[in-house]
Amino acid sequence: MNQHADFCINNVNIATMRSTTQAENDPYGIRENACIFIKNGLIEAIEPAKGRLRSTVETFDAKGKWLLPGLIDCHTHLVFAGNRALEFELRQEGMSYAQIAQQGGGIQSTVNATRLASYESLLNSAIGRAARLVEEGVTTIEIKSGYGLDVETELRMLQVAKDIESHLMVNIQPTYLGAHSVPNEFRDDPDAYVDFVCGRVMPQVVEQGIATSVDVFCESIAFSPIQCEKVFHTARHYSLNIKAHVEQLSDLKGACLAAKFNALSVDHIEYLSPEDVPAIAKSNTVAVLLPGAFYHLRETQLPPLTALRQHHVPLALASDLNPGSSPVASLLTIMNMGCILFGMTPAEALSGVTRNAAQALGLAQKGQISSGFDADMCLWDIQHPNELSYGINQIRPTRAWVSGRER
Amino acid sequence: MNQHADFCINNVNIATMRSTTQAENDPYGIRENACIFIKNGLIEAIEPAKGRLRSTVETFDAKGKWLLPGLIDCHTHLVFAGNRALEFELRQEGMSYAQIAQQGGGIQSTVNATRLASYESLLNSAIGRAARLVEEGVTTIEIKSGYGLDVETELRMLQVAKDIESHLMVNIQPTYLGAHSVPNEFRDDPDAYVDFVCGRVMPQVVEQGIATSVDVFCESIAFSPIQCEKVFHTARHYSLNIKAHVEQLSDLKGACLAAKFNALSVDHIEYLSPEDVPAIAKSNTVAVLLPGAFYHLRETQLPPLTALRQHHVPLALASDLNPGSSPVASLLTIMNMGCILFGMTPAEALSGVTRNAAQALGLAQKGQISSGFDADMCLWDIQHPNELSYGINQIRPTRAWVSGRER
Ligand SMILES: [Zn+2]
Ligand SMILES: [Zn+2]
Repeated sequence: MNQHADFCINNVNIATMRSTTQAENDPYGIRENACIFIKNGLIEAIEPAKGRLRSTVETFDAKGKWLLPGLIDCHTHLVFAGNRALEFELRQEGMSYAQIAQQGGGIQSTVNATRLASYESLLNSAIGRAARLVEEGVTTIEIKSGYGLDVETELRMLQVAKDIESHLMVNIQPTYLGAHSVPNEFRDDPDAYVDFVCGRVMPQVVEQGIATSVDVFCESIAFSPIQCEKVFHTARHYSLNIKAHVEQLSDLKGACLAAKFNALSVDHIEYLSPEDVPAIAKSNTVAVLLPGAFYHLRETQLPPLTALRQHHVPLALASDLNPGSSPVASLLTIMNMGCILFGMTPAEALSGVTRNAAQALGLAQKGQISSGFDADMCLWDIQHPNELSYGINQIRPTRAWVSGRER
Repeated sequence: MNQHADFCINNVNIATMRSTTQAENDPYGIRENACIFIKNGLIEAIEPAKGRLRSTVETFDAKGKWLLPGLIDCHTHLVFAGNRALEFELRQEGMSYAQIAQQGGGIQSTVNATRLASYESLLNSAIGRAARLVEEGVTTIEIKSGYGLDVETELRMLQVAKDIESHLMVNIQPTYLGAHSVPNEFRDDPDAYVDFVCGRVMPQVVEQGIATSVDVFCESIAFSPIQCEKVFHTARHYSLNIKAHVEQLSDLKGACLAAKFNALSVDHIEYLSPEDVPAIAKSNTVAVLLPGAFYHLRETQLPPLTALRQHHVPLALASDLNPGSSPVASLLTIMNMGCILFGMTPAEALSGVTRNAAQALGLAQKGQISSGFDADMCLWDIQHPNELSYGINQIRPTRAWVSGRER
């Protein structure tokens, strides 16, 4: 059974984004004027461009356009109900966070709306947001739960996330983020909520096979390192991958904790101390930077980029698409923000949404254009791959393939 | 001869964006649950929603969606050749502006590429950029020349700008910006170039009727106030409207000068002194804020918003879409940046791309939904017009009309 038509693309420039030892000389892993063969949804081979086309497989002439790995948004919260535009307006008009929270704003308002929302309405709005990402060349999206905080809604969010795959040609990676916020019904006993996450919800997530990773929000306004450690232990017990929101607003040493559990990624990390970077580097954990939240929260504390580079910690970039702190449905804009706000280079930004984003999701077959990798690829009418980070809303891919099937 | 089908839209919520004396209570000029009548491309009347539809004109049911004035991008440079992605990459990698200029980067590289570009290639790339704006609900775009700096290329740029109207349903307002930069051939005698702008190019612009406004870049790296004054005098002689790039990098008092000439707008103005705001207020000149350039240049000096509000200077927002300092083809993102970076409210941002943007272009019939105005309108599937400023790349209009014709 082979749903995939085999084909090849001739006269194409490729940014393979392969990890190489000469990364500094050619961080894009460029293969100019090449011919690439796709078989059974995988990349079979990359060869020099052919003067004469092989007749055995369908071939098309890219005429010097650029082929790049499909983009990977490795951190989103794009399944939710309602929006927080009124809260945004009140904040711009000078209302304080405390006043907004008193009026029922903040994450709790999204939890309330999401609990009330049907599967269908959640799915429809999520498809709309995912479609915005997909238009820009995204072929894999990680989506977290965390606006249900009860058994039923968390499972519904994860099901909605996965079911986007039936409506858009895109890979979805659902992550269980029960430890996102303490729900009102557990307000007086957060530890009991952590027990509920570990003892009630996680077993059902595992039983339904509906998420392969578990995430936490380690912060004074969310969960303590001790509470997060409990979640990590349970996740490890179930062989689930670990991810963590850490050091976004303060330095609780959540990144070191997550690294001890060999987390796939530590995310946000504006307040990560440079001294703690070597510990992250040892664990093979990816640092996921989220400039959309930095921008919307008018944060001024920058992530410790110099130390991260020095210790060769892989850097990823993601949209953090959510209704409160990062209502940003554009991974290309995030790449630009990574450059402008964090001082990243266009090559770092592109690695951050391809190779390193794949690593942040534990996807060993994605994020590079290389033999044996999934044929998730986009064709761009550009002069050079640095154009993806340059500017906002200027370019889109001209063609896209997911596992070798054209979108 | 009537190309316009008359119609009405029933059960619609309208943000009229009319200027009212009660602006603070209702800055959006909201008419909820209304019925709007369009005749001969103009807005004829707004009435309460009808239980029964009139049979004389085509009617459709908006089912509670929101009708807003078509958005107006009142400051762009979107006709140009080449791109500056490599320059962007070199800057991110640590190269200084001086080094980049030495290597032939900066505005001169865009001038060189634009002079060499054919009418067709300029038109094609400009249509692509304008299409990005149009998708987001823009119905009027101002486009400046200024990358030719010789007779032939400046006229070609203005012609290309106007001809976009034959390919996209959008109003184009071309502006002659000869005094954008001193071209290499006049490097040793900038005054001679100003004479060339006033004596050689402007007369031909007027003769061809190809622009209704003249713009200057008043800055130490461009033209002095004395040179700009000469351009203004000539523009006034030809009855052309005046606009000016002022106080972007330093305070040369260009805004006061422009206001003395009753300029339609003063643009950028981060370095405008609050003391000079009353002079601007007297002349009915619009302050056009350009947060895309502020963001890309990592500027930290904020425009004097408090003084501008205090003296009731109309505030507009525009993309400044250009290949160097603001490669941003999204007016909705600019609205969000106006809020996040400059502290504007969503209502100010929406006024800034409707009513006040129209005033910045001298278009008395655009930017509001009101009897007698052009029927340039978009329908949005939103809960409230504050959603336009909230977030990035999340929404698009569901329908759009230009002079009553559906796009
Ligand atoms: Zn997050
Ligand atoms: Zn400009």
